[in-house]
Amino acid sequence: MSEAASPVTPVTSTDVPHWRQRLGTWVESTAVERFVVAVILINAVVLGMETSPALMDAFGGLLIGIDAACLAIFVLEISLKLVAFGWKFFRNPWNVFDFIVVGVALVPAGAGFEVLRTLRVLRVLRLISALPQLRKVVSALLHAVPGILSTGALLALIFYVASVMATTFFRETLPEFFGSFGASLFSLFQIATLSSWETIVRPAMEEHPWAWAFFIPFIILAAFTALNLIIAVIVDAMNTLHDMPSAAVLSTGNEYDDDTSGERRTSTGDPSVASDDHHLLYREIRELRADVAELSAQLKGADRHG
Amino acid sequence: MSEAASPVTPVTSTDVPHWRQRLGTWVESTAVERFVVAVILINAVVLGMETSPALMDAFGGLLIGIDAACLAIFVLEISLKLVAFGWKFFRNPWNVFDFIVVGVALVPAGAGFEVLRTLRVLRVLRLISALPQLRKVVSALLHAVPGILSTGALLALIFYVASVMATTFFRETLPEFFGSFGASLFSLFQIATLSSWETIVRPAMEEHPWAWAFFIPFIILAAFTALNLIIAVIVDAMNTLHDMPSAAVLSTGNEYDDDTSGERRTSTGDPSVASDDHHLLYREIRELRADVAELSAQLKGADRHG
Amino acid sequence: MSEAASPVTPVTSTDVPHWRQRLGTWVESTAVERFVVAVILINAVVLGMETSPALMDAFGGLLIGIDAACLAIFVLEISLKLVAFGWKFFRNPWNVFDFIVVGVALVPAGAGFEVLRTLRVLRVLRLISALPQLRKVVSALLHAVPGILSTGALLALIFYVASVMATTFFRETLPEFFGSFGASLFSLFQIATLSSWETIVRPAMEEHPWAWAFFIPFIILAAFTALNLIIAVIVDAMNTLHDMPSAAVLSTGNEYDDDTSGERRTSTGDPSVASDDHHLLYREIRELRADVAELSAQLKGADRHG
Amino acid sequence: MSEAASPVTPVTSTDVPHWRQRLGTWVESTAVERFVVAVILINAVVLGMETSPALMDAFGGLLIGIDAACLAIFVLEISLKLVAFGWKFFRNPWNVFDFIVVGVALVPAGAGFEVLRTLRVLRVLRLISALPQLRKVVSALLHAVPGILSTGALLALIFYVASVMATTFFRETLPEFFGSFGASLFSLFQIATLSSWETIVRPAMEEHPWAWAFFIPFIILAAFTALNLIIAVIVDAMNTLHDMPSAAVLSTGNEYDDDTSGERRTSTGDPSVASDDHHLLYREIRELRADVAELSAQLKGADRHG
Repeated sequence: MSEAASPVTPVTSTDVPHWRQRLGTWVESTAVERFVVAVILINAVVLGMETSPALMDAFGGLLIGIDAACLAIFVLEISLKLVAFGWKFFRNPWNVFDFIVVGVALVPAGAGFEVLRTLRVLRVLRLISALPQLRKVVSALLHAVPGILSTGALLALIFYVASVMATTFFRETLPEFFGSFGASLFSLFQIATLSSWETIVRPAMEEHPWAWAFFIPFIILAAFTALNLIIAVIVDAMNTLHDMPSAAVLSTGNEYDDDTSGERRTSTGDPSVASDDHHLLYREIRELRADVAELSAQLKGADRHG
Repeated sequence: MSEAASPVTPVTSTDVPHWRQRLGTWVESTAVERFVVAVILINAVVLGMETSPALMDAFGGLLIGIDAACLAIFVLEISLKLVAFGWKFFRNPWNVFDFIVVGVALVPAGAGFEVLRTLRVLRVLRLISALPQLRKVVSALLHAVPGILSTGALLALIFYVASVMATTFFRETLPEFFGSFGASLFSLFQIATLSSWETIVRPAMEEHPWAWAFFIPFIILAAFTALNLIIAVIVDAMNTLHDMPSAAVLSTGNEYDDDTSGERRTSTGDPSVASDDHHLLYREIRELRADVAELSAQLKGADRHG
Repeated sequence: MSEAASPVTPVTSTDVPHWRQRLGTWVESTAVERFVVAVILINAVVLGMETSPALMDAFGGLLIGIDAACLAIFVLEISLKLVAFGWKFFRNPWNVFDFIVVGVALVPAGAGFEVLRTLRVLRVLRLISALPQLRKVVSALLHAVPGILSTGALLALIFYVASVMATTFFRETLPEFFGSFGASLFSLFQIATLSSWETIVRPAMEEHPWAWAFFIPFIILAAFTALNLIIAVIVDAMNTLHDMPSAAVLSTGNEYDDDTSGERRTSTGDPSVASDDHHLLYREIRELRADVAELSAQLKGADRHG
Repeated sequence: MSEAASPVTPVTSTDVPHWRQRLGTWVESTAVERFVVAVILINAVVLGMETSPALMDAFGGLLIGIDAACLAIFVLEISLKLVAFGWKFFRNPWNVFDFIVVGVALVPAGAGFEVLRTLRVLRVLRLISALPQLRKVVSALLHAVPGILSTGALLALIFYVASVMATTFFRETLPEFFGSFGASLFSLFQIATLSSWETIVRPAMEEHPWAWAFFIPFIILAAFTALNLIIAVIVDAMNTLHDMPSAAVLSTGNEYDDDTSGERRTSTGDPSVASDDHHLLYREIRELRADVAELSAQLKGADRHG
C-alpha cells in the first residue's frame, strides 16, 4: 500500500529548487507514467519479436532501433528522476529495481557479454514497478517470505544431508545422477518434484535393493516439509484476511457512533482491540457499561435527594 | 442466486401481447425445462456414440437423425424464447451462452468446416445452463477469476520474460524445445507443471552446465506464484464463507428491525438466525442498551416525581 | 459419532428372547471385538504372504488353512449377530459393509471366479469397521462427498465434452491415445494428472500445430475445477472446525448455569443459537437483559410505592 | 516453546555440587552454543567437501582431520553436559537426539560399516537442535503428526489391500512392476505420486483391458485420502492460529482489569473460557452483570429507605 503512493512525496522542502520540484511532479504525473507503461509494452513486444530469426531478417534494423529508442526513453526517465529527487530517488526500492534493470541493459550493450545481453529482457519486468496492481502482488509475495524462511532453511538442510548421503551411497552405481554433490542435489530436487522420480530410484534399487528405504522417506519428508511451507503461506494469508475485516469495521465505525453521546467516544479509539468484528461488540458492551454506570450515578443522586 | 431465478421476469408490462407472455411462461415452465434437459442428455449420448466408427457403421443414419432432431428442438426452444422475450432474451448471460452454443452447431452444418463441426459437442455444455446446481458452480468459478487476475498477469509476465530468455539461451542447443518463442513458452509450461521437466533440463545442462541456475529458480518462482494464485482462490472462498452468513443476516435484517419496540421476545425463538451470530449478539446488546436507556428515563421520571 | 455407538442398542424390548439379548451383548463385547480385530490382522498378514510363491510353496497348506479359519470366524461372528439382532443387523451400514465383504469372499470360494477370488482381500477392509478411529476418518471422507458432487459433475462434463472433441480431432493421427472415446478419456485423465502429458501433446502438435490450443486450456480448466473441488473440501472442513467449539461449549455449558437462578434456564435450551461459543455470550447477554428487566420492574414498584 | 527454554533448569538443588552447576551454566552459555553452531557448520561444509574425489585427493588428510576435530568437540560438549547434568541430560529429547547422532558417528569409525559410516552426515542435523528457529519448525511438524495418524493408517490400509490385489492381478503380465508384494507397493506408491503412472497402467491395460477400473479408482481414492491428510494438517495449523490470539488476549488482559473494581477479578481467572477473544467479551458481559446487580442492590436500598 505504501509503495502504491507517490514514491518521493516530501520534496516540498525549501532547499530543493523550484524547477526540480516541478520536474519531479511532471515525471511522476499520470500522463508520463502511462507513456512509460506503453514504452515498456512496446519494448516487451519488440524483445519477443527479436527472438524470431525470420522477423529479424525482415525487420532486424527496425526492431533494434525501436529497442534502442525504448532504452533511451528509460534512461532519460530515470535520469530526470535522479535530477529531480537526487539521492532520495534510491529510497524507494522500486526505483532501485528500475535503476538496476535498466542499468543491466546498458552495460552489455557496450561490453558485448552474450549472457548479460540476454538480461535486457528483464527490462520487461519494469511493468511490475510501473503497474500498482502487479506491485501489490509482488509485495504480497515478498510479504510471505519471512514466514517461510525457517521452514525453507529446514528444507535446505534436509536436501544438504540427503545429497551428501546419496553421493556416498550411489556415486559408483549411478554416476549420471549422483556422480557429485551438485548432481545429487539436482537429482534429489527432481525426485522431490515427483517428476519421473522412478527413473532414478528403480535403477538404484537394482543395485541396492534397500534404496527405496532412502528415497521414499526422503520423498515423504520433503513433501511433508514443503506442505508445511505452503501451509505457512496459507495461514499467513488467512491471518491477513482476519485482520482485514477489523480494518473494515474501523473504517465504517463512524456510522455506529452517530447515536451515542460524546463522552463515550474514548473507548472507540482504543487501538489495542483491533481484531475481528469482536471490536464492535466489545465497544458496544463498554458503552453499555458506561450507560449502566451513569444510571447508577443517577440512582445514587435520586437516593441522596429522595 | 440471481441466475437461478426466472431470467426475464418483468414481461408483465402492458405493451407485451398476452400470447407472448403466455408463451414465455410456458417455455420456461418446469415441464419444458426438464424436457430440454432430457434432450441435452440424449444429444450428449448420441454425440458420444458418433465417435465410435463401429456404431456409426451400424446406426449412423439413426444417430445423425437423433442429433438433428435434438438440434431442431434446441433451435425451436431458443426461437420461442426469442419470440416471447424479444431482445430481453439476451439480458441473461446464460441465454447468450445457449444462443452461441446452438448457433455454432448450426453454422458448420451448412459450411462443412471440419473443426467447427466438432464444436457441435459444445452443445452438451448447455447442461450447465440448464441445471441450477452446475450454473451455481460455474458462477462460483467465475467469481474467483477477478481475485486472481493480477497474480495471473504476474505469472504471464514471468512466462513471457523466461520464454524470451530461454529462446536466446537454448535456441541453438535444444531447437526441439526452445527453437522459437512459442516452443519455449510450451516447454516452460511443461516445466512449470513439473511433468518430466528433467527431460528438458538435463540435456540443457549437458551443453550449458549453468542451465539449472535458470530453470530451478524458474520452477520455484512459478510454483510460488501459482501457490499464491491458489491461495487467493482459497482466501476468496473463505471470505465468501465468512460473509455468507452475515450477508444472509443483513438481507433479512429488516424483519428484525420491526419488532424493536417493547415486545422483543418474538425474535428470540426465530430459528432463521442461525448465522455469523455476531449480528445477533450486536443486536442483543443494542437492545439491552435501549432497555437501560428506558430504565434511565424511568428513573429520571421517578426522581422528578419523587 | 453415531456409528461409534453400539449398533443395535434397543434390543431390550420384551419380544426378543432373553438368550438373544445376551448373545447380542456378548458378541459386541470388547473382548470379542478385540478378538475379531486380531483375526482381521492375522488374515491380512496371511493374505499378504499368499502373494509370495516362495512362501506358498513352503507353507501353502498352512496359509490357506489359516485363511479358511479366519473366514470361518468371520462367518460365525456375522451369523451370531444375525441371530442376535435379526433384521436390525442391517440397519447399521457398517454391518452391511461387513456382510458384503465377508459374503464376497464366500461366493468365489465355491464358484472359482478368479477375479472375485481376489476380492477376498477386501476382507482386510473390515479393519475400518472394526476400529472406531478408522471408521471416523472414513465417515469424515464420506461427509465431504456431498459438498463436491456438483463440482465433480462439472468436471465429469468437461471430461466428456473434451473426450468427444479429442476423439474427433486426433483419432487418425494418434490412434494409440485417442482411437476411441474410452482411450481419449483415459489420455485426458493422464493429461489432467500432469503425468508426462507432453508425451501426448507434443506428438499431437507435430500433426496439428494448433493442438496446444485444445490441451493447454483443458489442463488449466481441469486444474482450476479440481482446485475448486479441493477448496470445497477444505472449506467444508473449516466449517466443521468452526462448529466444533460450539459443541464443546454446549457440553460444558452446565458449569455456567450453576450460579444463575432458575428462571433463566429457559434460554439455555434455545436450539436456534447452537453454533460457536457465541452461544455462551448470547446467553450471558440474554440473562443480563433479564436482570435489567427485573431491575426495571423493581424501579416501577419503587416508583409506584414512592 | 518449552524446548526453546534452557533444557535443565532445576539444577539449583543443593545436592548437586557447585562446580557441576557452574559447568552446566557455562556449557549452555550463549558463547559456547554459538561456538558449537559454528563447529556444526564447519563440519557440514567438510562433510560436503569429502564427497568430492578431487578435493579428497588434494586435501583429504586435512578434511578428515577437521572432521575428526569437529567430532571430538561434539563428544567433549556432550560429555561435559553429561557430567554437569547427569541423567537429567536425557530428559530433554533434543539432548537424546544429539547423543544418538554423535554416537552413531562414533560407532562406525571403529567398526568400519560402510553404510553406518555414511550416517556421520546426520551430525549436520544437530543444526536443528542447536538453532531455536529450526527446533520450533520441527516441533510444529511433529505436532501435526498425531492429527494425521488415523488418516495415515487408512492410507496404509488402502495401499496394503491394493498391493495384494495388484500382485494377484498383474504378477504374470507385469512382473517388473507387480512381481512381488514389495514391488507392487513400490509401483502403487509411484502411481499415487502421479509420476509417469501411465507407463505402468497402459501396459497393464494391453493385457487386461479392465485394468483402468482398478488403477483409476485407486488414484482417486489415494489422492482424496491424501488430500484429507493435508487438510487435517491445514485445519490443525488454523486451529493453532485461532488459539494464538486468545493467548495474546490473556497475556495482555491485565490492562483491561485496571478500571474494574477488585471483587470482579474472580471471573477473569476462569481458565475454562480460554478460547478466542470471546474471553474478553465474556468477561466484559460478566462484569456488566455485576454492575447491574450492584445497581439493583442500590435500588433496593433506595426503595427500602425511600
